Amino acid sequence: MEERFFAKLENACEEKQSLLCVGLDPQLEAGESSDPYGAILGKNRRVIEQTLPFACCYKPNIAFYEACGLEGLRALKDTLELIPEETPVILDAKRGDIGHTASAYAEALFSWYKVGCATVSPYLGRESVAPLLARPGKGLFVLCRTSNPQAGDLQAMLVSGGERTGLVPLYFAIAREAASWGENIGLVMGATDIQALETVRAELPEIWILCPGIGAQGGSLEQAVRAGLRSDGKGLLLL
Amino acid sequence: MEERFFAKLENACEEKQSLLCVGLDPQLEAGESSDPYGAILGKNRRVIEQTLPFACCYKPNIAFYEACGLEGLRALKDTLELIPEETPVILDAKRGDIGHTASAYAEALFSWYKVGCATVSPYLGRESVAPLLARPGKGLFVLCRTSNPQAGDLQAMLVSGGERTGLVPLYFAIAREAASWGENIGLVMGATDIQALETVRAELPEIWILCPGIGAQGGSLEQAVRAGLRSDGKGLLLL
Repeated sequence: MEERFFAKLENACEEKQSLLCVGLDPQLEAGESSDPYGAILGKNRRVIEQTLPFACCYKPNIAFYEACGLEGLRALKDTLELIPEETPVILDAKRGDIGHTASAYAEALFSWYKVGCATVSPYLGRESVAPLLARPGKGLFVLCRTSNPQAGDLQAMLVSGGERTGLVPLYFAIAREAASWGENIGLVMGATDIQALETVRAELPEIWILCPGIGAQGGSLEQAVRAGLRSDGKGLLLL
Repeated sequence: MEERFFAKLENACEEKQSLLCVGLDPQLEAGESSDPYGAILGKNRRVIEQTLPFACCYKPNIAFYEACGLEGLRALKDTLELIPEETPVILDAKRGDIGHTASAYAEALFSWYKVGCATVSPYLGRESVAPLLARPGKGLFVLCRTSNPQAGDLQAMLVSGGERTGLVPLYFAIAREAASWGENIGLVMGATDIQALETVRAELPEIWILCPGIGAQGGSLEQAVRAGLRSDGKGLLLL
């Protein structure tokens, strides 16, 4: 039976005493377009070598590979082979579709790329993640409160949250909804909105949170750790 | 200067006197896995030959190609070559990411696959589509009210719609928001919710609507046409 992704992630964080998720987002320089495969693989190999002692997981964003066509995606496939088996990988793909199409995405993510976890969009609802969650042990991080400046245009819209809470921000309703989809669900919550992080952590004390936006995007490491950690000092990935 | 996608689409609909968008969603049979490239290309060639007289556009869903790995995506690339230059193509990819990543998706969709239009998710807001809309003439269909049975779990949540309207369904707020992002925007509105289609058409009399869900999913062709057409008898794609 396949090990549960979030158990593997917890082991990796424990063993490396780290909360760090390392992005693998290769962007080619002007002179590198003649051999995108070699350029991408070389960059990623260097990043992996330099970060392996303290990276509890890696997160390639598929967009950077797809931008280089088939050679880029071949480089993604071979990059995944460079990552040691015991180190978890989240494929940042933000997928979301329904029915047969969602099953096709499950096949692509978990049978072709063979990753343990992927990011998904919540917009099509539970049906869009069900075929992915049906894969034993696989994990999903659902987009909830993203770190871009204008994310709030939609995600902070006030929605009717039911009897219990009246109007709540959309991201909060999504957090509760997504958490109800199964145990192999985590949330993407940017470090750029600490209040959102606190509120969702209070509502969902056990859920894993993937927390981008620290540093260049303005999120504070210290505040994110304080707001996002579970009471056992785990459950948070920073990048 | 590149022709504007929606102008090209309007010409194609006019010339073929059709509202039909044909999906290219190849699913392989058990015996076809040894040559996914050949099987996909063969299926698509037959569909295109049979439908070209009345298809005003084609819509391949990238998931079915990605499920077969690099050979599948090579078949997608070569399928696009089978479609005559004057026939518009919408790549159904439901992409949505931000910043450099959104630019990488623009590169993948419009420079690598070279399609005129793609579907995108609205969840990350305006920033996630801006790099795609920056490509001259390219079109986007934004997911709004999708045709899956449980889509309403999220999309029909009531949100604060501002002074003018009080609480409105999320899809309605998204329709208004997305329409404000630029002129090269259309909406995905399933034929499974005719009332939503009517309401959005009344609010946005000019916008293009891509309307899936007719037939197997239970949407009525007649009702969708009545609710979704613009007053000039265009602006609606059915599939």
